[in-house]
Amino acid sequence: MKEKIKIGMVGLGHRGAMLMRYVIMTMEDVEVAAVCDLYKDRAEDAAKKVEEGGRPAPFVTTDYKEVLAMPEIDAVVVTTSWRDHFKVSIDAMKAGKYVGCEVGGAYSLEECWQLVRTYEETGSPCMMMENCCFGREELMVLNMVKKGVFGDVIHCSGGYRHDLRDEIAGGVEDRQYRLGEYLARNCENYPTHELGPIARVLDINHGNRMLSLVSMSSKAAGMREYISAERPADDPLQKCEFAQGDIVTTMIRCARGETILLTLDTTLPRPYSRGFHVQGTKAMFEEDNLSIYVDSAENRKLHFRWKDQWGNVESFREEYEHPIWKDFLARFSREEDIMIAHGGMDWLEFRAFFDSVKAGGPVPIDVYDMATWASISVLSEQSIAQGSIPVAIPDFTEGKWVTPSAEVFA
Amino acid sequence: MKEKIKIGMVGLGHRGAMLMRYVIMTMEDVEVAAVCDLYKDRAEDAAKKVEEGGRPAPFVTTDYKEVLAMPEIDAVVVTTSWRDHFKVSIDAMKAGKYVGCEVGGAYSLEECWQLVRTYEETGSPCMMMENCCFGREELMVLNMVKKGVFGDVIHCSGGYRHDLRDEIAGGVEDRQYRLGEYLARNCENYPTHELGPIARVLDINHGNRMLSLVSMSSKAAGMREYISAERPADDPLQKCEFAQGDIVTTMIRCARGETILLTLDTTLPRPYSRGFHVQGTKAMFEEDNLSIYVDSAENRKLHFRWKDQWGNVESFREEYEHPIWKDFLARFSREEDIMIAHGGMDWLEFRAFFDSVKAGGPVPIDVYDMATWASISVLSEQSIAQGSIPVAIPDFTEGKWVTPSAEVFA
Repeated sequence: MKEKIKIGMVGLGHRGAMLMRYVIMTMEDVEVAAVCDLYKDRAEDAAKKVEEGGRPAPFVTTDYKEVLAMPEIDAVVVTTSWRDHFKVSIDAMKAGKYVGCEVGGAYSLEECWQLVRTYEETGSPCMMMENCCFGREELMVLNMVKKGVFGDVIHCSGGYRHDLRDEIAGGVEDRQYRLGEYLARNCENYPTHELGPIARVLDINHGNRMLSLVSMSSKAAGMREYISAERPADDPLQKCEFAQGDIVTTMIRCARGETILLTLDTTLPRPYSRGFHVQGTKAMFEEDNLSIYVDSAENRKLHFRWKDQWGNVESFREEYEHPIWKDFLARFSREEDIMIAHGGMDWLEFRAFFDSVKAGGPVPIDVYDMATWASISVLSEQSIAQGSIPVAIPDFTEGKWVTPSAEVFA
Repeated sequence: MKEKIKIGMVGLGHRGAMLMRYVIMTMEDVEVAAVCDLYKDRAEDAAKKVEEGGRPAPFVTTDYKEVLAMPEIDAVVVTTSWRDHFKVSIDAMKAGKYVGCEVGGAYSLEECWQLVRTYEETGSPCMMMENCCFGREELMVLNMVKKGVFGDVIHCSGGYRHDLRDEIAGGVEDRQYRLGEYLARNCENYPTHELGPIARVLDINHGNRMLSLVSMSSKAAGMREYISAERPADDPLQKCEFAQGDIVTTMIRCARGETILLTLDTTLPRPYSRGFHVQGTKAMFEEDNLSIYVDSAENRKLHFRWKDQWGNVESFREEYEHPIWKDFLARFSREEDIMIAHGGMDWLEFRAFFDSVKAGGPVPIDVYDMATWASISVLSEQSIAQGSIPVAIPDFTEGKWVTPSAEVFA
C-alpha cells in the first residue's frame, strides 16, 4: 500500500482544470506531478495552480507521451476531449500506468475492444470516472435494491437531460469540441451518466448483460432556433446545419429480461435532470419528484391519492443511505464542502480511484464497464442511421458476465 | 338542432355502469332509451338505475343488434370489452347511429380500415371517447402549445402507468376480461390515454402523421409475484404464465420529425400517472412534478437550481386554462361535482359527444383518430414479436392529413 501517489493530468480544459483544483488538490496523498494539454497555456495555467496550492511544480508538456514516459507517475487522469479518451487510456495502460478516464461515448467498437485487450495484456487497471455512479440518490437506490426493497427490478430509465445550448454554441473561440460533434454526428452521444448507475442496479457485466438496443432520434431544431434568437445575424453559426437530433431515445433489452430506457436531451430548454427511475416488483424510485413508492395493500388502496406523497424520499434516508455516503457526510459536514465537485460525487469517485492506485488493486468501474457503456454511442448511431433497427450489443467480457460478483461497489 | 336525444348503452360492466349513472344521467337532454349487456343481470341492473333516477324505463336486451334496430335511438355508447369495440361501432354506424366508443387498442389493421371505410360509406360519425384529451393539464398544455409558448414541439412522452394487478387478477369471477389479454398478448395494449392528448399537441392527422414505431417489452414478472404473494396457494391463477411484459416502451417517429414515447406500465406497484411530458424549443411540461419550464436567459442561469421551482404549474393557470375548462369550472363550483367522473374529463367528453349528436355535426375525435391511435396496439405487437423492429404506421386518412385543420378542439 503506497502512502502517496503521483499522477499526471492529461487534458486541462474546463473539466480537467476544475477536477484538479477543487477535487484532486484537496487530497494530501495525491501529488500532481505532470500537467499536459494540447493548448500550452492551459497546461501552464494548471501548473501555476498547483504551485499556488503550495505543492511542488509539476512537469509541463503538450505531449501526453512525455507524461507516460515518467517512471514516477503512478496514474494518469484522462480529461481530454471525448475523441482522445480511448487512445490516451490505451497508451497509458501500455506504459504501465493506472488510468482514470473521464466519461463519454466511443466512436467505434474497435476502440472498445482494443481497450479491453490492452487491459488483458498489460494488467493495468483503467477506471471510467463515472461520477454519477457515486450520486447520493443513485447509491441509496442501489443499496435498497441490493437489500431487496425493490424485489425483482424490471425496468430502469434515465437521461442526460441538460440544456447545453450555451456550451455547444460556445464554439471554436471557447475551444469547445462539442460543437463539432453536434454538427456531424447523430447518436446517444453521452450515455453513461444514467447508464452507469442503472448498470449497477441491474448487475450488468456481473450476472447480467445488455443484449440489444434500438435508438430513435427527433429532428434537430433546438440549436438552430437558439442561435437564431441569441446570436448576431453575421455569426457563422447562423449557417450551420446540426446533425444531432434534439432528443435521442434508446431502448435496451437485457439478458435477464429487464429493459432500460435512455434519453439524450441537451439542445432544448429544460432544468437539469438525470431522470433516474427504477421499477421493480416491490417498489419504484422516481428522481424528478424524489419519490419512493413501496408496494403494500394500504398504498394500493390510496391509488390516485398516493400522489400526495410524491417527494417522500427523505423518509428512507436514515435506513438506506449508502455506507459510502454515510462516511462522506461524516467527513464533510460543511454544506460548501459537500457542494464542491458535483455535490460530492467527484470527490467520491476520485477517492475510490486513488485508493485503488495506492492499494495496487482493481478499480470499481473497469475496462469491461467502460467498453460496454461507451459502446452505446456507436450502436445508437448505427441504429438511427438504419431507421431504428435493433442492434446487438457486444459482450466485451466474452462470457465472464455470467458469473455474478458478490459486491461491485464497496 | 335536437333539443333532446335518445341513446343506447351497449356494455354495462364497471365502466359503462359508472358512466351511465354518474355522467350521462346527470344530463337532462339525454335519455337512456336502451341498455344492453351480454350478462342479462347487468342490463337489468342498469335499467333499474335509470328508473330510480326518475327517467322512463329503457328497453333491456342482451343483443346489441336489437338496440341498433330501434329507430328512435340517436346514438350508441359502446362500453363493451376491448375486443368488441370495433365490431359494435361498425354495426352501429351501418345502422345510421352516432357512435361514442370507449378506448382500447385494436386487434388487427383490418378492423381499423373497416371502421374508416364504414364511416366513409355511411357518413355516421364515430367518436373515440378518449377522456384524457379533456384532461385539465392536457388541455392547458395544448392551449399553450397553440399559443406558441412551447415553440416548435419536438418530443412528447406519456404512459398508462396504472397498477392494475388487483383488477387483472380479478379474473373470471369478476368477469374481468383483462386477465385473458394479459395471459395471451404482449403489446402496448392501451395506448390512447397518453397518445390522444399527444396527438392533439402534434397535429396528428391534421398536418402531421405518425410514420413508424418500435416497441420493446420487458419480461413479465409483476403478475406472477403478485399472485404468489396475495392469492391462496390453490388459486388456479398460481399456475398461469403471463405473456404481457410488465413494461412496454414504444418509440414513434412523426412526419415533421418529432418523436413520441409511450409506456405501458400496469403490472408493477406504482402510483397512477400518465407521465404527460411535452418538450419544445421554448418550453417544457412535466406531469410528474407539475412543472412548466419556459426558456429565458434568467432560467438558463439558474441551471441545476431551477429545480427549486418544480411544481410551478399553478402560476400558468390563470393565463392559459383552456376555455373548455374555464366553462366547466364556471358551471360546476362544488368540489364533489368536479371530482365526479375522473375529475371532469368524462363529463366533458360526453358533453362534447352529445352536443355533436344534437347538432348533427362532426365529432371532435373521429374514426381516423380512432383507427390511428388504436392501431398502435397491433403494430407494437408486431414489432415486439419480431425483436423490436421498426414497423410502418398506416395512413388511415390516405393523404388527408397533409391539410392542417384550423382547430380540432373547440
